[in-house]
Amino acid sequence: MKTDIQIAQEARMLPIRDVAAGLGIKEDDLELYGRYKAKLSDQYMRGLKKEKDGKLILVTAINPTPAGEGKTTVSVGLGQAFGRLGKRAILALREPSLGPCFGIKGGAAGGGYSQVLPMEDLNLHFTGDFHAITSANNLLAALLDNHIQQGNSLQIDSRQVVWKRCLDMNDRVLRNVVVGLGAKADGFVREDHFVITVASEIMAILCLARDMADLKDRLSRVIVAYNLSGEPVTAGDLKAVGAMAALLKDAMKPNLVQTLEHTPALVHGGPFANIAHGCNSVRATAMGLKMADYVITEAGFGADLGAEKFLDIKAPMAGLHPDCVVLVATVRALKYNGGLPKDQLTEENLAALERGIANLDKHIENLHSFGLPIVVTLNSFLTDTPAETDLVRDFCQKKGCEFALSQVWAKGGEGGIPLAEKVLEVLENKKSEYHPLYEPSLPLEEKIKRIADKIYGADGVDYSPAARRQLQKIVSMGMNHFAVCMAKTQYSLSDDAGKLGRPEHFRVTVREIYPAAGAGFVVVVLGNIMTMPGLPRVPAANHIDVTNDSVITGLF
Amino acid sequence: MKTDIQIAQEARMLPIRDVAAGLGIKEDDLELYGRYKAKLSDQYMRGLKKEKDGKLILVTAINPTPAGEGKTTVSVGLGQAFGRLGKRAILALREPSLGPCFGIKGGAAGGGYSQVLPMEDLNLHFTGDFHAITSANNLLAALLDNHIQQGNSLQIDSRQVVWKRCLDMNDRVLRNVVVGLGAKADGFVREDHFVITVASEIMAILCLARDMADLKDRLSRVIVAYNLSGEPVTAGDLKAVGAMAALLKDAMKPNLVQTLEHTPALVHGGPFANIAHGCNSVRATAMGLKMADYVITEAGFGADLGAEKFLDIKAPMAGLHPDCVVLVATVRALKYNGGLPKDQLTEENLAALERGIANLDKHIENLHSFGLPIVVTLNSFLTDTPAETDLVRDFCQKKGCEFALSQVWAKGGEGGIPLAEKVLEVLENKKSEYHPLYEPSLPLEEKIKRIADKIYGADGVDYSPAARRQLQKIVSMGMNHFAVCMAKTQYSLSDDAGKLGRPEHFRVTVREIYPAAGAGFVVVVLGNIMTMPGLPRVPAANHIDVTNDSVITGLF
Repeated sequence: MKTDIQIAQEARMLPIRDVAAGLGIKEDDLELYGRYKAKLSDQYMRGLKKEKDGKLILVTAINPTPAGEGKTTVSVGLGQAFGRLGKRAILALREPSLGPCFGIKGGAAGGGYSQVLPMEDLNLHFTGDFHAITSANNLLAALLDNHIQQGNSLQIDSRQVVWKRCLDMNDRVLRNVVVGLGAKADGFVREDHFVITVASEIMAILCLARDMADLKDRLSRVIVAYNLSGEPVTAGDLKAVGAMAALLKDAMKPNLVQTLEHTPALVHGGPFANIAHGCNSVRATAMGLKMADYVITEAGFGADLGAEKFLDIKAPMAGLHPDCVVLVATVRALKYNGGLPKDQLTEENLAALERGIANLDKHIENLHSFGLPIVVTLNSFLTDTPAETDLVRDFCQKKGCEFALSQVWAKGGEGGIPLAEKVLEVLENKKSEYHPLYEPSLPLEEKIKRIADKIYGADGVDYSPAARRQLQKIVSMGMNHFAVCMAKTQYSLSDDAGKLGRPEHFRVTVREIYPAAGAGFVVVVLGNIMTMPGLPRVPAANHIDVTNDSVITGLF
Repeated sequence: MKTDIQIAQEARMLPIRDVAAGLGIKEDDLELYGRYKAKLSDQYMRGLKKEKDGKLILVTAINPTPAGEGKTTVSVGLGQAFGRLGKRAILALREPSLGPCFGIKGGAAGGGYSQVLPMEDLNLHFTGDFHAITSANNLLAALLDNHIQQGNSLQIDSRQVVWKRCLDMNDRVLRNVVVGLGAKADGFVREDHFVITVASEIMAILCLARDMADLKDRLSRVIVAYNLSGEPVTAGDLKAVGAMAALLKDAMKPNLVQTLEHTPALVHGGPFANIAHGCNSVRATAMGLKMADYVITEAGFGADLGAEKFLDIKAPMAGLHPDCVVLVATVRALKYNGGLPKDQLTEENLAALERGIANLDKHIENLHSFGLPIVVTLNSFLTDTPAETDLVRDFCQKKGCEFALSQVWAKGGEGGIPLAEKVLEVLENKKSEYHPLYEPSLPLEEKIKRIADKIYGADGVDYSPAARRQLQKIVSMGMNHFAVCMAKTQYSLSDDAGKLGRPEHFRVTVREIYPAAGAGFVVVVLGNIMTMPGLPRVPAANHIDVTNDSVITGLF
């Protein structure tokens, strides 16, 4: 069986110029990055204003196994299937993070015969967007420490610096560091922390900003520290905004690439789906809607995290109106949710499947509560048995819910045609009554309670004493109208990774709340969230290589 | 008077495709990065093998004032002047570092009417080469700490880790840090240091590597730490080489841009000129020689640092044979070398000029000792008086040395024609008898002594006890045949920044010696060398901005 990189390297890509021409994009509006990648100019984006919006299809998933359930693969396969049906479709996806490539996870540009290309570039530097974010993030940090060094006229309390440095690298020793050691010229000593670039608030901001003015506005509101009186100090106070925006100028432009079957794909931005909102950029999605009749986009992790944030943060901020949701499940994730250990997921087990399907049930309920038509799809694995597939199909039919099998990993677009046809049918016949779960005016505490109760199925929300104080402070800073960005485990509907399936009779505990004032949401942390991953005993990096002819091998 | 960025933004650039076509480069051999930047493919480079080499002109300078003497501006102006004379010339220059843009220094792509474009891109992310180096450097660091965390089978002594993390940022608090704080899962605690990216050994390696095989070979030799028995541990031992090379794959390809007058310029690589060799990449210079009849390249800082390393490190490693040297002086730097305080440099002062010209004298002597024909040029400033210019011209005539005035900052290529004509005359009439100062077989200690005596004019070399021990260890590791890379102040021929002009009767002190085994040289440190700059009281970043139409302002 061929690996992803073998399939990717054997593919014949079209020059991206030709893919763009197929979308009616003039060459002047393309900023090429080699033959197969391009950024789309601001001018092109402005020219699209008069176009009508296409249909927006959100791809999300049930609670996953630790291996992930192939949302991106299904999204790509669905896009390819639309292409085979002669429809004008475009993908709007997240950029992969460089750090995890060298750890366990490997690349993140789809898989099998449903991939976005060029695979190596996407997984390494791509068009430099993440490097620009790293630079802007770390410039802000350098300006902050320099301000303290040069007299600290803003009276920054070095015990209350909340801005963290970042690197796009899995590097555990940078989680907790002490900086500023040495002599007087080497700065004031303080505790500091690095996060991975995708966890930087700049990433969330870049993905939510409508245009340069909005970007600068959001950057200026970023809280970097509190002063000795406890008042927030912002990036605007540090006069950092213009230089950061200069660093982000090109990163603001959506990237155009293609799938294995030449379906156009806008791959742009990639914030975490726990401490951030987990979707590709607003600009790419909005642009895609003007460029094609169907835009397929995805949200990170399961529907309780990714889709909830797409529907409660990204869509309201960007004025998006999703028309249909594709809910991805896998037989193995359903069995995992049914309590089966990880090493037994490849064996047929109808009892476990039947128990685990409660997880799918809850996600269907949740997505219906947003007013959205749903198509459930099983992303098929070679180890799935017909009895297992039938069980899921029957369940969906009983629920009055559309169902299609996806065989996109093995068969590419061809394997996504049943799903594409089902989606087209739903778009034709069912009207989206999309509405977010809450209005901005609802107090933060009520927003949190509503998400916990309605989406997670919790019986209520408890607060640690620290979180209670933080909430009060945030409210006192005038942020009660902010959106809520929940940070919790992706493996359970609850805040306990061990509670699989459809947990009941549980409460969730808020341990920490902090504002991401530039992004425009409050991060509500349930449990420990890792913002700087580590490398495993045998890192994937050990197997990556380049031939003397510059061909990359061993990248997953 | 217009600022550099105003001049740059008002310029009408040619599409880089057209610049390339003028060089006979087929579009298939270009990897475009937007309309005005391109990388040149490996295939193109291979195709050049059969071409004859052009003439190589090295631009260097006397010991500078802290403001720099405009070597890049003169190089660019000379290239433009060759263009005006109808000659096929190409520039081979260093890429500017991002960090200093936000500090004092500002950009580094020439100045006035002798600039390389697009100026903003060059000074910000350009084609991402430096970000790739940052990633490769920090991947190696993460793999090292992960190795210690996961059992440390190589027995790395965490007190003797010599590999440093890096960022392309002026950030003083990262000079000395402690990493690995927190819990067991957060790594072992140890002292660590960040350097600016241009100071990374990876930068030096990228610039010296002939091809991918040589790059990997050099990377594998990089010493990252010593084990508990005192033996070196390398990047090869950590199995880091393939993944690092994958990150550097595109960064290995030279970048093609243009000057204000459309002269082609290869801008590629940019190592420090103290702890590294301070020249653009070997690949770009070698490629340029095949592409044009005249290649103009430069070396960092004054001729005692940059040119010495060009002639003793880069040229021998790459098999280059420079044909002529342009030695840049300014009236203000000569007066500074004559002991005039910085705030009086704009006033006419013939006495100070006469004293300071001893510095020029010594550099002429030094460059002659390498067997090279020289043209001295004064990079003219608006404040220079005719009497000052005449004094320098007369001095050069007395020395039997060619002289030309450069007015390239104010007049572009037109202002460089006298210099270009003089260079052409020299290339026609004087044969380069270039030879390096030492052979590889000369013991390290003798190499150091020869540079100090012959180039600096020192009476001898002293060693700190630590440096003496380090030298013994390096010799015992079998590196006596390595080249020597001197790290010292750029403001004086000696190791004391206060000793201006042509110091005599002094000895230099070696404080530290360490191997850069991948680069292939031993770094010999005379005095304190800063490898992570800081930001000033009012950072340049405060003044940089972007309009809502994405035009950058305030970048110098």
